[in-house]
Amino acid sequence: MHTDLVAALDIGGTKIAGALVDRQGRILVRAQRPTPAQENGETVMRAVEAVLGELAASPLWQRAGAVGIGSAGPVDASAGTVSPVNVPGWRGYPLVSRVRDAAGGLPVELIGDGVAITAAEHWQGAARGHDNALCMVVSTGVGGGLVLGGRLHPGPTGNAGHIGHISVDLDGDLCPCGSRGCVERIASGPNIARRALDDGWRPGPNGDASAAAVASAARAGDPVAVASFERAARALAAGIAATATLVEIDIAVIGGGVGKAGEVLFAPLRKALTEYATLSFVRRLAVAPARMGTDAGLVGAAAAALAGRTDTAVAGV
Amino acid sequence: MHTDLVAALDIGGTKIAGALVDRQGRILVRAQRPTPAQENGETVMRAVEAVLGELAASPLWQRAGAVGIGSAGPVDASAGTVSPVNVPGWRGYPLVSRVRDAAGGLPVELIGDGVAITAAEHWQGAARGHDNALCMVVSTGVGGGLVLGGRLHPGPTGNAGHIGHISVDLDGDLCPCGSRGCVERIASGPNIARRALDDGWRPGPNGDASAAAVASAARAGDPVAVASFERAARALAAGIAATATLVEIDIAVIGGGVGKAGEVLFAPLRKALTEYATLSFVRRLAVAPARMGTDAGLVGAAAAALAGRTDTAVAGV
Repeated sequence: MHTDLVAALDIGGTKIAGALVDRQGRILVRAQRPTPAQENGETVMRAVEAVLGELAASPLWQRAGAVGIGSAGPVDASAGTVSPVNVPGWRGYPLVSRVRDAAGGLPVELIGDGVAITAAEHWQGAARGHDNALCMVVSTGVGGGLVLGGRLHPGPTGNAGHIGHISVDLDGDLCPCGSRGCVERIASGPNIARRALDDGWRPGPNGDASAAAVASAARAGDPVAVASFERAARALAAGIAATATLVEIDIAVIGGGVGKAGEVLFAPLRKALTEYATLSFVRRLAVAPARMGTDAGLVGAAAAALAGRTDTAVAGV
Repeated sequence: MHTDLVAALDIGGTKIAGALVDRQGRILVRAQRPTPAQENGETVMRAVEAVLGELAASPLWQRAGAVGIGSAGPVDASAGTVSPVNVPGWRGYPLVSRVRDAAGGLPVELIGDGVAITAAEHWQGAARGHDNALCMVVSTGVGGGLVLGGRLHPGPTGNAGHIGHISVDLDGDLCPCGSRGCVERIASGPNIARRALDDGWRPGPNGDASAAAVASAARAGDPVAVASFERAARALAAGIAATATLVEIDIAVIGGGVGKAGEVLFAPLRKALTEYATLSFVRRLAVAPARMGTDAGLVGAAAAALAGRTDTAVAGV
């Protein structure tokens, strides 16, 4: 049988999305369920099985030769298990074997969601053509992934590129992860909003106190809103510069809700990068907004499945 | 002709060491000159040529099939040039082509000195058998290199693993590199000594105010000396944890003069790592002292030459 498609799963704390994807990264069939994140592990798994069942009901399913999973982390690709922070019912949960069973024994590739986004941006988005790249999602949390030497670098457990939880302020505020001064603790959307509120910014009549509202205020010139984005930009710059200094990347791609803030974020980010990325081999580092949309997780999971199956077939993955 | 040896050069701001090395990493012939670091570039090059000339005078030279260079950085392996901070006469200096000429046209492999040390520790030292490792030199400066997926990861320009110049304190003290709060700015030997002196520690009757003297005082229980090492350990821990979180390493090997301080450094380092390396996939990270001695740079340069020549022959490089 000709298996020219893969099934992809994008598993987050809010929704479980699935798709059948072709070798050009086109999504041919979709399925989705809300994540019953606060239920027990078996209930969450039934939602995954429902998504897979809906995909399997398509006549195209018989052309699927593998399943790729991008999951909220941490994951353990070597053990085939996941322990998503926001899905407490899954701790060391054997997702790979369960999905293999549900998918009729197809081979399964598991990567973290930051790695999946990176696979997608490298395949079809802003990191295309770059052999050494960091791709980030700056949103409720801060995640990421790496392309090194032209290939996705998931690391042994599929978690590499976790830039949100490197410390750029070793005496800084405690982070929920247990460390201090993490990039996420300074630069995530909720932390941008919290800092603006702490420093006296007030939401408008609609009561919107999100980072997007702070971005609007910053665009309108509110100095407290501007300062909160500048602080986030400094933390991101220190983290991106650290990554470049450690592994030599030439581009950092930033997606997620905060990444959509535009020049309110990118202007101070570029300026701060000149302060932190100082060594000769990192000075030409570029930053760019992500190009993939909400399907990035699915497309990246598909890329991982295609790369795992064929080892070479996906351009650049 | 049977070329079972390589020539190795270890180029620093103090000395230029050379050797003929066999495939087991044994040094068969040695040569050395002081680095005329403050002279012009051609004078420095003549010292390199003198070392190569002395090696070439050996009857073993005809068995050498390649030259490996580990140089003080930054280097640019893709361009074949070096710009060592402490050798101002060399800026974008075409060392690879000059060495190739001086070595009768042998192929030349160039890597940074931190990468060279890493190649040596991975081949024969404390990182042997580890597929994902960070090796560091903590001394007058702080350098390093990475092994990822079982292979040396020099990066496109040969500078990857430059952990000394990642910021772990984004509002911290200015570093000579231009950034702030770099690991080196907190954890290098001179900074350990400076901080102890600033906080009231005084050298003994022999006047030794080095980091080694601070280490002795710490071992004897001097609280200011202990605190200075603890601060260095925190910065190293934050940097090592960041590296593990970004690329998934399972061991960090620490050499150099400060690395020899023993438990005065390693005890607070292990403690601080539990605070900064918090995610599940980095919690089992080990730290270990380096095992290679002063020949690490030469052995690592030899490993790079052997790997470049044969692409597979050196175990684990």
